[in-house]
Amino acid sequence: MFDHSFKIRVPYADTDKMGLLHHSNYLRYYETARWELLRNIGILYSEIEDEGYILPVTSASIKYIKPCYYDQLLTIQTKLVSYRGPRILFDYQIFSESGELVNEASVTVACAGKEDGKACHPDGLLKELFIKVEKERG
Amino acid sequence: MFDHSFKIRVPYADTDKMGLLHHSNYLRYYETARWELLRNIGILYSEIEDEGYILPVTSASIKYIKPCYYDQLLTIQTKLVSYRGPRILFDYQIFSESGELVNEASVTVACAGKEDGKACHPDGLLKELFIKVEKERG
Amino acid sequence: MFDHSFKIRVPYADTDKMGLLHHSNYLRYYETARWELLRNIGILYSEIEDEGYILPVTSASIKYIKPCYYDQLLTIQTKLVSYRGPRILFDYQIFSESGELVNEASVTVACAGKEDGKACHPDGLLKELFIKVEKERG
Amino acid sequence: MFDHSFKIRVPYADTDKMGLLHHSNYLRYYETARWELLRNIGILYSEIEDEGYILPVTSASIKYIKPCYYDQLLTIQTKLVSYRGPRILFDYQIFSESGELVNEASVTVACAGKEDGKACHPDGLLKELFIKVEKERG
Repeated sequence: MFDHSFKIRVPYADTDKMGLLHHSNYLRYYETARWELLRNIGILYSEIEDEGYILPVTSASIKYIKPCYYDQLLTIQTKLVSYRGPRILFDYQIFSESGELVNEASVTVACAGKEDGKACHPDGLLKELFIKVEKERG
Repeated sequence: MFDHSFKIRVPYADTDKMGLLHHSNYLRYYETARWELLRNIGILYSEIEDEGYILPVTSASIKYIKPCYYDQLLTIQTKLVSYRGPRILFDYQIFSESGELVNEASVTVACAGKEDGKACHPDGLLKELFIKVEKERG
Repeated sequence: MFDHSFKIRVPYADTDKMGLLHHSNYLRYYETARWELLRNIGILYSEIEDEGYILPVTSASIKYIKPCYYDQLLTIQTKLVSYRGPRILFDYQIFSESGELVNEASVTVACAGKEDGKACHPDGLLKELFIKVEKERG
Repeated sequence: MFDHSFKIRVPYADTDKMGLLHHSNYLRYYETARWELLRNIGILYSEIEDEGYILPVTSASIKYIKPCYYDQLLTIQTKLVSYRGPRILFDYQIFSESGELVNEASVTVACAGKEDGKACHPDGLLKELFIKVEKERG
């Protein structure tokens, strides 16, 4: 349930003069992938913001294993690993069309109030999500 | 008074696999250049938003005369051309270090309420700005 | 044949603090849309570069009719309008999910040699494309 | 010698609808900061590419300590920590105008041939740089 697969084709604008997918863009793709994981379990990230919460990134760690190129169709495997306090940890792997692992990453987001930006334990959709995560992970 | 010069060095991330400054980034530089023009006459764009207004772009027209490259130090000449109704027109020219004209553009922004997004005639800093513009332009 | 429809969902990273899709990103989406049009008629843009040509943008004109937002599923209608000399003109319209026209644009690209960057009349895939365009447009 | 301080003002385009500097942009700023460190010791990154080498990122680890905002003037402290095999490690800290630590990161780049993309031990400017690094670090 907390695993999701998402495909993205590398746009020209995301390349750099080395001819590679610029390394900053992986974080943009990972962001899209984690909200697609939520969509897949019935939660829109925009609904979370409507409920008064934001989920800013608090840490990220990325390994660039193989370069990626313009027009490659990448498969991003996203895993919601754990919920600890107000933090959610996502693990990622990206595979090329030939199935080769090209990138992997861990990204932590924290739940915070939209108005004051302070870390908090949320109600509503996020609380339901966290209960599901804890149940599934045991 | 409504002319301003601003320098920007092309970052590596803004290039593409053609080896050029990607064409979408000029609009980002022009945006920075127009808020620097405002700063130069004593108005911070963030203060305008604090007063409840936003200035979204409503049209843009760009001529890519010469390509630009990584690490070039570009000079952006910005001119606040006119204020008509709730719209402000900016004209731009970009020059290379050798003084060659490499890009030119016109960008129109409109004043809108931050909450409802509707076009409006603003009070506060923007109203003062528009009075100054009308006075100077005659 | 020279019309194509392409869908894109607005990523979070492409929004700005106004809460809107940042105006610079439309040019990025239009770029993807025109290479998808080519893909649809059997030409990969990367093959064009492999043949020694690039198609840099020489002018762009954009009307921001309605704002776009995070997570909107936009439909981009792309039309390859004409081929004149070494220039190709594309017209675009973007529609929201409710079918409302939210953005329109014209973008011109020019054929140039990959090595010297000079405008040129190409052989190969581009020549075939241009013959098809002239035939279809009459 | 292998420490450098670089200032950047957060552009509007780099914010997101949370109102924060989007987390992917820090990697773009860190890239600029490391080539500014090289410039400061007399090496242009573009000269390295002219000599036939590229320095792609192989890993990155980022801690987002405090959020950053539009128009903040950030100070990036960059340190060239070590040269091991064909890899160079950079450490970064970003400080707000009030001197608060808001972000820190480690980024590793590897030397590779521009044509084949393979990791290599370089000649020329990079070799000189590595000798200096080893001498200084002891």
